[in-house]
Amino acid sequence: MNGLQLITKTTLMGPGPSCVHPKVYEALSMPTIGHLDPRFITIMDEIKVMLREVMGTKNEITLPMSGTGSAGMEAAFVNLVEPGDKVLVLVNGVFGKRMAEVARRLGAEVEECEFTWGTPVDPNVAEKKIREKKWQIVAIVHAETSTGVRNPVEKLGPLVHEVGALYIVDAVTSLGGIPVEVDAIGADLCYSGTQKCLSCPPGLAPLTIGERAIEKLKNRSTKVPNWYLDLSMIIDYWQGARRAYHHTAPINMLYGLHAALSVLLEEGLQNSYVRHLKMHERLVQGLTSIGLELPVAEPYRLPMLNAVTVPEGVDEGRVRKVLLESYDIEIGAGLGPLEGKIWRIGLMGYTAQAENVDKLISALQSMLHR
Amino acid sequence: MNGLQLITKTTLMGPGPSCVHPKVYEALSMPTIGHLDPRFITIMDEIKVMLREVMGTKNEITLPMSGTGSAGMEAAFVNLVEPGDKVLVLVNGVFGKRMAEVARRLGAEVEECEFTWGTPVDPNVAEKKIREKKWQIVAIVHAETSTGVRNPVEKLGPLVHEVGALYIVDAVTSLGGIPVEVDAIGADLCYSGTQKCLSCPPGLAPLTIGERAIEKLKNRSTKVPNWYLDLSMIIDYWQGARRAYHHTAPINMLYGLHAALSVLLEEGLQNSYVRHLKMHERLVQGLTSIGLELPVAEPYRLPMLNAVTVPEGVDEGRVRKVLLESYDIEIGAGLGPLEGKIWRIGLMGYTAQAENVDKLISALQSMLHR
Repeated sequence: MNGLQLITKTTLMGPGPSCVHPKVYEALSMPTIGHLDPRFITIMDEIKVMLREVMGTKNEITLPMSGTGSAGMEAAFVNLVEPGDKVLVLVNGVFGKRMAEVARRLGAEVEECEFTWGTPVDPNVAEKKIREKKWQIVAIVHAETSTGVRNPVEKLGPLVHEVGALYIVDAVTSLGGIPVEVDAIGADLCYSGTQKCLSCPPGLAPLTIGERAIEKLKNRSTKVPNWYLDLSMIIDYWQGARRAYHHTAPINMLYGLHAALSVLLEEGLQNSYVRHLKMHERLVQGLTSIGLELPVAEPYRLPMLNAVTVPEGVDEGRVRKVLLESYDIEIGAGLGPLEGKIWRIGLMGYTAQAENVDKLISALQSMLHR
Repeated sequence: MNGLQLITKTTLMGPGPSCVHPKVYEALSMPTIGHLDPRFITIMDEIKVMLREVMGTKNEITLPMSGTGSAGMEAAFVNLVEPGDKVLVLVNGVFGKRMAEVARRLGAEVEECEFTWGTPVDPNVAEKKIREKKWQIVAIVHAETSTGVRNPVEKLGPLVHEVGALYIVDAVTSLGGIPVEVDAIGADLCYSGTQKCLSCPPGLAPLTIGERAIEKLKNRSTKVPNWYLDLSMIIDYWQGARRAYHHTAPINMLYGLHAALSVLLEEGLQNSYVRHLKMHERLVQGLTSIGLELPVAEPYRLPMLNAVTVPEGVDEGRVRKVLLESYDIEIGAGLGPLEGKIWRIGLMGYTAQAENVDKLISALQSMLHR
């Protein structure tokens, strides 16, 4: 039984995972050391410093949670929500929906303010909604991976604070590809995932939490109903001179994240943003040249996640299958109401290179126009 | 900033992580592919088949959760506990205590039946306690990593079922090193971790759930208050011909687990158990020969986790520090009330080799008797 033999180098142009940088692969297979080993503590400390820079924050508590991006979302809500809390989620795709579901399961009174999928959250409508009630939490997805829409997270932070609520921002797909300036945005808690623009395999959820959110965490009337993701204990594991054992950190994945952050900062954040944008433009040009259309209006398109309308009469599943089997290229399908209607083409992290874009366009051209 | 340069090959003889098999390192750095790629589905399916064999179960739902061993514990309780449930935890160490804490946070009425740390759970005392009340859940740790004690998990399964409760067994440290016969034990839910006797880095929690537990999961009056670990959704992600997207699986870690399970089954489970036992005997002989003592009574000692009494007048922290810095060997400290009183010497998975045992004994001898 050896399915591992089936694996070939695949160009990952779906909604994640993205292509992994060679230095990250190298790091993943370095010798495992103990999770309380002083050398590992150094690696943890360096990861925190680099993450702060990548996330644009001075927050002391900036660390990767030991789970995938979805665990980051779970951690955000389970730490900050108390039963009965009024939570407003600004929804325009699958991941906004999921935020609402996660919060509801924790006993919050959740309202979803929903916008048409494929369009951004309208800040004026959102403002009205935010002023309507005494919310404890307002949550939004920065880059809606299901539709390729960029939400104006930077416009709502001050307002959320004005009404005394905490602001949770999902930066799973955006981090590393477009600026995620946590402090400037006014996000009280922001989380991401490693498998998108950080060019690392899935498995960790970078997360940062600010003073106001920590205050709420400290003043909870009940303990966090999730031992594994309880930030107050995880802080003791990641901070200070002497680390309190909590769980056994996923050592080799953290090597990988360390390498990925180093690669990103060596390139420079601005350079990475520019590269993502240029590759996006190259992709749009290529798609247009072969007659394909992007349903999201130009100002709201995400560079790293491009929704493309499936042309009438085309079997979208077959296109993805042939791309994977004959060209070693993966692209993604639509989710939820957009299933069958769009493809999702990712240009995340190490994937965002001219040769990948050109390879995909050429493959699509020969498949759609033969 | 490059703490990764500090890493050297270290002989991991602590309570975990253990030494990783070379084939696992190799697998970890194989090219990342998509988590819904048909080839990845094959790898997932093979992992399930191998896990069933390693865990000694026919349970259809046998899969790795996307988190560390502690996430396995969290998953066990969050899926099976409903608020107000009566939960009995048989405690004789840190991990039993943690089970109780996890269950309490979920709103269960928890009772701890505690036994002296360093001694096993007494089945007669436990039986009395189990018959005392209408418990919904009885939980126990198979191999108590904090003290090196093996608990008689096989003696209580039928009784737990007789009183109509579900039986949760923690096999984090035992799996792969001593028989964990889930079906024979009568465990309704059993979880483990990759970083012990499976010779894989930390990051995944193998878990199996039987029909009776699934019945309870299906009949919950409220949704599982944890979206990320909700088994009913994770089952749809890991079962069936068409997989429903839930979260993005930690692809490369799963490559590693696949390789680790292959290595273990190639050696043969029985051979692995015998190897662990032989290395344990070699270690005990070596420790005794240099005047060290094991506090746990012989019949209850775990082969893969050996508690050793710190001799009077010895600075236990210094010994660990010098072992690590001068000999590249890691051993573990005591936890909780045993801090400073014991060392914990792990012989887990790939660590359990004669040359490692001999290297440690020789190092300890020169340090303690100079």
